[in-house]
Amino acid sequence: MRLGVCYYPEHWPQHMWPRDAKRMAELGLSRVRIGEFAWSRIEPEPGRFDWDWLDQAIDKLHEAGLGIILGTPTATPPKWLVDRMPDMIALDAQGRPRGFGSRRHYCFSHDGYREEAARITRAVADRYGRHKGVVGWQTDNEYGCHDTVQSFSTAARDAFRSWLAERYGSIDALNEAWGNVFWSMEARSFEEIELPNLTVTEANPAHWLAFRRFSSDQVVRFNRVQVDILRALSPGRDIMHNAMGFYTGYDHHDLAADLDVLGWDSYPLGFLEMFRFSDEEKLAFARSGHPDIAAFHHDLYRGCAAGRGAEGRWSVLEQQPGPVNWARHNPAPLPGMVRLWTLEALAHGAELVSYFRWRQFPKAQEQMHAGLLRPDDASAPAFAEVEQVATELDAWAEPGPGVKHAAIVFSYPAEWMTQIQPQGEGCSALWAAFRSYEALRRQGLNVDILAPDAPLDGYRLIVVPCLPIVPDDLADRLASSASQVIIGPRSGSRDADFAIPEGLPPGPLADLVGGRVVLSETLRPGLFHNGAGWNVTRWLERLEGDAEAELVCDDGTIACWRNGRVRYCAAWPEGQLIQTIVGRAAADAGLPVDLLPEGRRRRTCERLTFEFEYLAGGVSVSATA
Amino acid sequence: MRLGVCYYPEHWPQHMWPRDAKRMAELGLSRVRIGEFAWSRIEPEPGRFDWDWLDQAIDKLHEAGLGIILGTPTATPPKWLVDRMPDMIALDAQGRPRGFGSRRHYCFSHDGYREEAARITRAVADRYGRHKGVVGWQTDNEYGCHDTVQSFSTAARDAFRSWLAERYGSIDALNEAWGNVFWSMEARSFEEIELPNLTVTEANPAHWLAFRRFSSDQVVRFNRVQVDILRALSPGRDIMHNAMGFYTGYDHHDLAADLDVLGWDSYPLGFLEMFRFSDEEKLAFARSGHPDIAAFHHDLYRGCAAGRGAEGRWSVLEQQPGPVNWARHNPAPLPGMVRLWTLEALAHGAELVSYFRWRQFPKAQEQMHAGLLRPDDASAPAFAEVEQVATELDAWAEPGPGVKHAAIVFSYPAEWMTQIQPQGEGCSALWAAFRSYEALRRQGLNVDILAPDAPLDGYRLIVVPCLPIVPDDLADRLASSASQVIIGPRSGSRDADFAIPEGLPPGPLADLVGGRVVLSETLRPGLFHNGAGWNVTRWLERLEGDAEAELVCDDGTIACWRNGRVRYCAAWPEGQLIQTIVGRAAADAGLPVDLLPEGRRRRTCERLTFEFEYLAGGVSVSATA
Amino acid sequence: MRLGVCYYPEHWPQHMWPRDAKRMAELGLSRVRIGEFAWSRIEPEPGRFDWDWLDQAIDKLHEAGLGIILGTPTATPPKWLVDRMPDMIALDAQGRPRGFGSRRHYCFSHDGYREEAARITRAVADRYGRHKGVVGWQTDNEYGCHDTVQSFSTAARDAFRSWLAERYGSIDALNEAWGNVFWSMEARSFEEIELPNLTVTEANPAHWLAFRRFSSDQVVRFNRVQVDILRALSPGRDIMHNAMGFYTGYDHHDLAADLDVLGWDSYPLGFLEMFRFSDEEKLAFARSGHPDIAAFHHDLYRGCAAGRGAEGRWSVLEQQPGPVNWARHNPAPLPGMVRLWTLEALAHGAELVSYFRWRQFPKAQEQMHAGLLRPDDASAPAFAEVEQVATELDAWAEPGPGVKHAAIVFSYPAEWMTQIQPQGEGCSALWAAFRSYEALRRQGLNVDILAPDAPLDGYRLIVVPCLPIVPDDLADRLASSASQVIIGPRSGSRDADFAIPEGLPPGPLADLVGGRVVLSETLRPGLFHNGAGWNVTRWLERLEGDAEAELVCDDGTIACWRNGRVRYCAAWPEGQLIQTIVGRAAADAGLPVDLLPEGRRRRTCERLTFEFEYLAGGVSVSATA
Ligand SMILES: [Zn+2]
Ligand SMILES: [Zn+2]
Ligand SMILES: [Zn+2]
Repeated sequence: MRLGVCYYPEHWPQHMWPRDAKRMAELGLSRVRIGEFAWSRIEPEPGRFDWDWLDQAIDKLHEAGLGIILGTPTATPPKWLVDRMPDMIALDAQGRPRGFGSRRHYCFSHDGYREEAARITRAVADRYGRHKGVVGWQTDNEYGCHDTVQSFSTAARDAFRSWLAERYGSIDALNEAWGNVFWSMEARSFEEIELPNLTVTEANPAHWLAFRRFSSDQVVRFNRVQVDILRALSPGRDIMHNAMGFYTGYDHHDLAADLDVLGWDSYPLGFLEMFRFSDEEKLAFARSGHPDIAAFHHDLYRGCAAGRGAEGRWSVLEQQPGPVNWARHNPAPLPGMVRLWTLEALAHGAELVSYFRWRQFPKAQEQMHAGLLRPDDASAPAFAEVEQVATELDAWAEPGPGVKHAAIVFSYPAEWMTQIQPQGEGCSALWAAFRSYEALRRQGLNVDILAPDAPLDGYRLIVVPCLPIVPDDLADRLASSASQVIIGPRSGSRDADFAIPEGLPPGPLADLVGGRVVLSETLRPGLFHNGAGWNVTRWLERLEGDAEAELVCDDGTIACWRNGRVRYCAAWPEGQLIQTIVGRAAADAGLPVDLLPEGRRRRTCERLTFEFEYLAGGVSVSATA
Repeated sequence: MRLGVCYYPEHWPQHMWPRDAKRMAELGLSRVRIGEFAWSRIEPEPGRFDWDWLDQAIDKLHEAGLGIILGTPTATPPKWLVDRMPDMIALDAQGRPRGFGSRRHYCFSHDGYREEAARITRAVADRYGRHKGVVGWQTDNEYGCHDTVQSFSTAARDAFRSWLAERYGSIDALNEAWGNVFWSMEARSFEEIELPNLTVTEANPAHWLAFRRFSSDQVVRFNRVQVDILRALSPGRDIMHNAMGFYTGYDHHDLAADLDVLGWDSYPLGFLEMFRFSDEEKLAFARSGHPDIAAFHHDLYRGCAAGRGAEGRWSVLEQQPGPVNWARHNPAPLPGMVRLWTLEALAHGAELVSYFRWRQFPKAQEQMHAGLLRPDDASAPAFAEVEQVATELDAWAEPGPGVKHAAIVFSYPAEWMTQIQPQGEGCSALWAAFRSYEALRRQGLNVDILAPDAPLDGYRLIVVPCLPIVPDDLADRLASSASQVIIGPRSGSRDADFAIPEGLPPGPLADLVGGRVVLSETLRPGLFHNGAGWNVTRWLERLEGDAEAELVCDDGTIACWRNGRVRYCAAWPEGQLIQTIVGRAAADAGLPVDLLPEGRRRRTCERLTFEFEYLAGGVSVSATA
Repeated sequence: MRLGVCYYPEHWPQHMWPRDAKRMAELGLSRVRIGEFAWSRIEPEPGRFDWDWLDQAIDKLHEAGLGIILGTPTATPPKWLVDRMPDMIALDAQGRPRGFGSRRHYCFSHDGYREEAARITRAVADRYGRHKGVVGWQTDNEYGCHDTVQSFSTAARDAFRSWLAERYGSIDALNEAWGNVFWSMEARSFEEIELPNLTVTEANPAHWLAFRRFSSDQVVRFNRVQVDILRALSPGRDIMHNAMGFYTGYDHHDLAADLDVLGWDSYPLGFLEMFRFSDEEKLAFARSGHPDIAAFHHDLYRGCAAGRGAEGRWSVLEQQPGPVNWARHNPAPLPGMVRLWTLEALAHGAELVSYFRWRQFPKAQEQMHAGLLRPDDASAPAFAEVEQVATELDAWAEPGPGVKHAAIVFSYPAEWMTQIQPQGEGCSALWAAFRSYEALRRQGLNVDILAPDAPLDGYRLIVVPCLPIVPDDLADRLASSASQVIIGPRSGSRDADFAIPEGLPPGPLADLVGGRVVLSETLRPGLFHNGAGWNVTRWLERLEGDAEAELVCDDGTIACWRNGRVRYCAAWPEGQLIQTIVGRAAADAGLPVDLLPEGRRRRTCERLTFEFEYLAGGVSVSATA
C-alpha cells in the first residue's frame, strides 16, 4: 500500500513547491493528488488557458519522485462559466437555485455544462495525459456532496422524461407499473410526468424511485464522458473517483464499473458526529470514530469496485488527519488514530491512503480543517503518525487478502426504497447493513459487502439485511450455496417498480425463507417485545409458512424464523437481536466466533492478522495463525 | 347501524368485481363507497367519458345487494385538466406551488376549477343519480387533508378581497375592527389588503382570523356547488362528506349544514401518533389508540351534524382496519380493536361504519395501508373481527340514543384563535376541549359536543373549555339553564374581530362568572403552582370580582373560582386540575360519577350500556339499568 | 434619572389624551415617547399630511409638563408607499419577499425608500423640530428587529458590489484577501460577486463577514440620513435610537457614534425565554429574568455610547411592565421586578427609564402585551411599582458613577465571526462575553463593556472573552496597563478578512499570552475534561510557548495558561471554569471579591451601593462605604 497526500499548489507561493515536494517524499509519501478545484487558475478567462503554474507544480512534484493523481476541476466551474449559462445551476426540491459561491453548482442533466466539463477535461488531459509524473486521474470531486445529485431544474425534468420513455417504452406501461390509477395520476404521455417534488402530499413512491434511478444514471453518464476522454488521452493511467461516507445518492456499483480504482474519503470523526449513531455512541467514540465506520466503507467500496470482474481495486483518496471543520462538533482524534486508520485501510486491501491535506489553508471555507502541516508550516500531530506508519509499512506491506468469512448483500436501490418509504422512523437499508456489519465484526469476522449480483462463493455466512428488490436468481444462488443465510425484513418485498409482489414478501425468497410476510408494522421507540437478552424494536413482520420459530419473545412474538440453513429476521436487525442471530448462524457455519470487547476489532488477512484497539488508538499486528 | 367498505374497482381486474361484491355481502356489509379518486378513468381525455367500467362496477355491487355511496372525484383532477389551467394550483404559505403528483392539487378559490368540479359532478350525477344501487353521495374527499384549505394564490387573494368587502362594507370599518392604526397597517381600499403570509413578523391576528374564516367559507362554497347539483340530479340520496380527525381547517358546523350526513374517517392509531399526545400516552395506547380519540370525534361530528335541526346524522366513512402508512410509526392494532372501534361508533349513534379499504393495493402511495383483505386476496386480521361484529349487530342494532349527561361547547373559530395567538406553547382550544372531554369520560359520563348556538336543554353539566368568541345570548342561556357550568380560560376574551372586549374578558360571561380577568400569563413546562393533587400549568389568569376561590394553590394562586352553579377554571384545563373540577361539578349536578380505570370507558344508551376496555381490546354490552 | 412612558395617542379617542397626560405626570413621569408607528395617520395619502391630531397630542402632553421624544415613523411605511415601489421590500435568505402586513418591511439598501424616509423625517422635523415640548428624537424603531438587517434583494446586491469596490479597491485584492482561489471562487470584477445566500454549501466565511459588515454599514448610513436632518431642523434635542437585547445584527458602536443617547428596550423575561439560557435557568429565573440580562445590556450600551468621547449617555427607551406577547411562554414578573429593573438602570447610569406602554391596546399584534394600565384603563400591577420607585428616586437620584473594577472587551464583528463559523455548537462571542460578565458580577464586581479601541485606564481586571480580530495596538495597550488580563479562546485568531494570521492565533496577542494556539477542537455536550471543580467544555485549544499551565485537568489537559499578569483561557469561558479564572484574577488584582448567592447582584456607585435580590424582587440601597 502506498501513502499520499492531497495538495493544492495554487494556494501557496511557487517557491514553496519544491520544498513541499521534498518533504512529502522524505515523509514516505509516493502519491500526491492535485488540481481538482483549480479551474479558475487553469482557465482564468473563457478560452484563455494558463498552464505555466501547473506545468511547474507537476514538474516539481514529479522531480521529487511523487506520482501525481490529477483531478478534473469540474466540481468548481468558474463564475464566468456560470454567467454564460445560468440555467446550468441545479434547483433544490423547494425550487430554489443553488448558485455560485461554494462548489458543485451544476445540474448533472444540463447538456451545456456537460459539454463544458468535457472541454476542460480534454484540455487538461491533452496537456498532461502522457506526462510521466501523472499516474492517475480523479474525475470531478465527491459527486453528490452537499446533496447535489438530485436537481429539480427544467433540464432535469426534460432529461427525466426521455429517461422514462426509454425505460418504459410506452406511457401505458409506466402507468401500469406505477399504479397511477390510484389518485388519478395517470399520464397520457411522458410529457405529462413532472418531477416528484412540490407535490401536495408525497408523490408515488414508484415515481420517486424512478427519479432516484434517473438521477444516479445522470451521475454515471456525466462521469463516463470524462472517463472516455481520459482513457483516450492518458493511456495506462488509473481513473478514479472519490466517494464519500454513508452516502447513497447514486449507485456506486454503476459508477465503479467505469473506473479503474474506486476511491473514498474517510472522515471517521465527522461521520460519527453527523450520522445516525446514538448520542451514547457519539460520546464514546468521539475521538476514535465508531470502530466500524472506516472498515464498513473499505469493504463496501472494495465490493463496488469488484464489479469490473477482478478483486476490487480501491483507495482512500482523503483521510482525516485531525479535527475537521464541517461536523456539528469537531474534536481532535486520539493520539494514534491516524496511524490506526491507515493500518485499517491496509488490512482491508487499499492501494493508497492519501491524507487530506498537506498543509492547513488559512483562508476560505476549510480554514479550520487540519492538515499534516499547520498553516505556519510546522508539523501538525498527524505528521509524526504518518512518519511512523510509513516506516512500519516496509514490514507489513503485504498482509495478503482477507480470509473469507461472511458476506453482506447490499444495493443502493434498497436504501433509496427505505428512504422513500421508511414506514417507521430509522428504518434504513444502509443502516441495517451497517448494524449487521457491526454484529459480524464484533464476532471477530471478516466481512465482504456484495452487490446482489456478485458471486457468493466461499462465504460460510451470508447476510441480506434489507433488500427489497432481489434479482431473479438470488434465491437460487443462495439455495445452491452451502452457506448459512440470514435474511432481514423487507427483503423481496418489492418489484423493480416499487410494487408489493403478487405472492407477498419476501417474493422470490419465499421458498428459501419458508414463509410469507402477511403483516408489517413499525414500533415507536419504547414500544418493543421482550426477548431473552434481545428485543424486537422498530419493525416487526408476521410470517405464515413452514419455517420454525427460533427466537420467540415473552409474549409469543416471533423475532427470528429458521428454515434449515436460512434464518429470517422478522424484526429490525439491530442491537442484541442481530448480534444473537449472527452469533448463532456463525456458530452453525463453523466460523471462528469470538465476541470482542466494544472498542476492539480484528482483520484476518492471509499473512497478517491485525487487532485494532479503537478506544486506545492502538494496533497490534501478528502473523496469521 | 350498517357496515360498509371503501372499494376501488378501478384498481382490480374486472373479473374480480362480482366475487368481491359477493364476499362483501356475505361478510355482512351492506354499503360500499366507491369512485372518489377515479376522474382519470371516468374522463381519460378532456370531454371523452368512459362510463362502461363504472356502469359494470355499480351494477355488480348493486346486484350483490350493496347500497353504493358514490364519490365525486374532485379531489384528484387529472393531469390534462391541471395543464389546461395551471393557476388552479394552490400556493403554500411560502409561495411555492403545490403541484400535480399526489392529490388535492387545487385552490378552493379558483373559479375555473370550481366550474370543472361542477361539470364532472354533473356528469356523474347525470349518469348515476337515479340508479337504484346508488343510495348516497360523498362530495370530494377529506377537504383540507394535507393542509389544503389555505391557499396563497392570486385567485385566493382576489377572492379574499371580495369576501372582506362583503363582510366589512367599508375599508374604514375593517381598519377600525382590526386596529390597523397599530403599525400603520391602514388600507385605503380592499385592494390594499394582502394575504397574511410572508410578512416580516406576524400579521395582525384579526387579519389571520379573517383569512381563516374566508378560507373556511371557500370550502363550504365549493362543496355547496356539488351539493346543489346532486340534490337536483339524485333526489332522495344522502349527501355526505368525510371529515378527518383533530382537523379544524374549516368550520364543520357550516359544512354540515349543507349535508344530510356528516361522515368522518377514523384512524385512532395514526391520530394518536401524529397529534399532541404525550410520549407516555403514545406508548401506552400505541396499539389501541387513546380511548377518547374515536369517541370525541363521534360526539363532535354528531354535534356538527345536528345543526340541521334534528339529532345529527353521522357515519364513519373510513375506519382503520390495521396498520396505516402515514404516521411516524405504524403499529398494528391489538386483536379486538377493529370490533371495539365499530361498537364505539354504534354506541355513539353512527348510521354506518365503512372500513378503509376492501383490499390492500400493492402499488402507489398507500401500498402499506392495510385492508380487510391482503394484497394476495386472503383475509387480513380485521376480516374476522368484522365478521364477528356484523353478527353481533343483529342483537345490538338498536342501543337507543345516549342518555344526556354533560355537554362541551366548542367552536372552530375558537381553535383558529388559539392557533393564531397561542401566547404559550400548547394552548389550543381544541386540545382544551379534548382534555375536558377525557375528564368527563373518565367519570363514566356521556358527553355531547355542541356548537355555541346549540340548545343546552337537558344537560346537567355544561363545560365551555376555551371559547374566546361567545354568542351574545350564551350567557343568558347558561344562566337560564339549571346546569352546573364550567368555563375555561380565554372564554369571552375576544370580540368577533379578535379584539379584547371593552370590559375585559370574559366579556359577556362576566356576570355569570362573577369576575373579570385582569391578567393572563403563560408558564413554561416545569413552571407550575402546586395544588392538592393537581397543579396549575401552562396558562394562568388573575380574576377580580365576587366569585369565591374554590381551588387554591399552596402559594395562594387561585386555580378555580366559583360563583354559584358556575365555576371558572383560571388555569389551563388539563390533567388532574380539570379532572378535579369536573368531578366536583358532576357531583354537584347529581350525575352518576364513577372514576374509571385508565383504559376503560363507558357509553350509556337508552337501551344498552357499553363498557370498552381499550387496553385489552374488549367490549361488554348490557341492558341499561 | 427620569421616568417616562411610551404612548400611542393615535390608538385612543382624542378626549382621553388630556387625562392620560395628567395621570402620567401625577405618576411621576416626565418623558413620553410617541409617534414612531404613525406614518399612516401623519400622511394618510401620498403627499397629504394630517398634522391636526399630532399637534393636539403634542400640545396636551406638553401642557401636562411632559417632555416629548418623537419617533420618526420609518419602521412602518404605509401600504400606498410600498405599492409605489414594490422593490423596496427586502428578500430573505431564501429569496422570499418580506412584504407588507406587519412592520420593518423595507430593504436598507433601497435608494428610493431611503429618500422617502428622509422626506417623512424632514416633514415631521419641520413641523415639530422647534416645538418646546419636543426634547428628543428617536430614529425609526429597533433597527434589525425580526431579523431585518440583512436583505438579499437586487438593491442590496448592487450596493454590496459598490461597497466591496470601495473597501478593496481592486478585485484582485478581494480575491487575495478572501482566498478565493480555494474552490475556484475567483471573480474577475466586482460585478461577479453575488450575495452569499443560496449557495450549494456554505459560502466563503470572508464573503459572509464582508456582507455582515456591509449590512451593518447600510443601517448606519440609513440612520445617518435621519440624524442629519434632525440635527439641522431640531437643534438642541437629543437624538436616540432604541437598540434591542442580545442583538448583534449591526455594529452598535458605529450607530451610537451618530447619536446623542443610545437607548435600548429591556424585556428581561422575554429575553430569558428566547435566548441561549439553559432550561434550568429559564425555569429558575422565569419571573425575574436572569439577574445579568438587564445589567449586561446597560453596561454594553453605555460602552457603545461612550464612543462619542464622553461617558456614554444611554437610556432604557422601553421597559417591560408585565407579561409580553412575543416569547414562547410569557409569564408575569414577580411583584417588585418592575421597581427592581428600574433601580438596576439607575445604578448603571441610565438617563431615562421609559415603560412600554402606557395602556395595553386591545387590538392587533401586541394586544397581549401588558402596559401600566389595563385595556379598561384601570391600573395594571406595574403601575403601583412605578409610583413607588418614582418617589424613591427623589432620594436616590444621584448614585454617582460606578466604581471602576473590571472591563470586558467586546466587538460586534467578533460575534459575526462566531456566528459565521461557530466550529462547534454554542460557540458565540456574545455568549462568551455574557458568561464572563456573569462570572464577574457573581463576584460582586462592577463591569464596563468596552469596544476594542476604548481606553483601558483604571480597570484592575480586563477580560477579552473571545475577540478574533484585534486592533493592532491592543496588545500594547494591555501590556502597558497594570491590569490583570484574561484572554479567551479564538482571540486574535483572524485578520480583518477572516484569515488565520501567519503566526497562528492569538496573532498580535501572542507575546502577551506567551504562546501560540497550535490546535483547536470542539467538544459535544458530555465530552469534557475534568478539573478541580470546573470542567473543560465545548472548545479546547492547545498552546505552545512560554506561558505556564495554571489550571490542569485530571488527564493533563491545560484549561488555563498564565504569563505574568495575563491568563489565557484555552477552553470555552463558561460555568465554573470562567468563574474560577475570574476569581483568581480578581484576587490577584486586589479587587473586593465576594461570591454572591445565585440571585443576588451588587452595583457599587460612588455615592450609593445597590443590592438586588432577583429571586425575591427586592432591592436595598445604602451609602457606599
Ligand atoms: Zn465533501
Ligand atoms: Zn387523508
Ligand atoms: Zn421589537
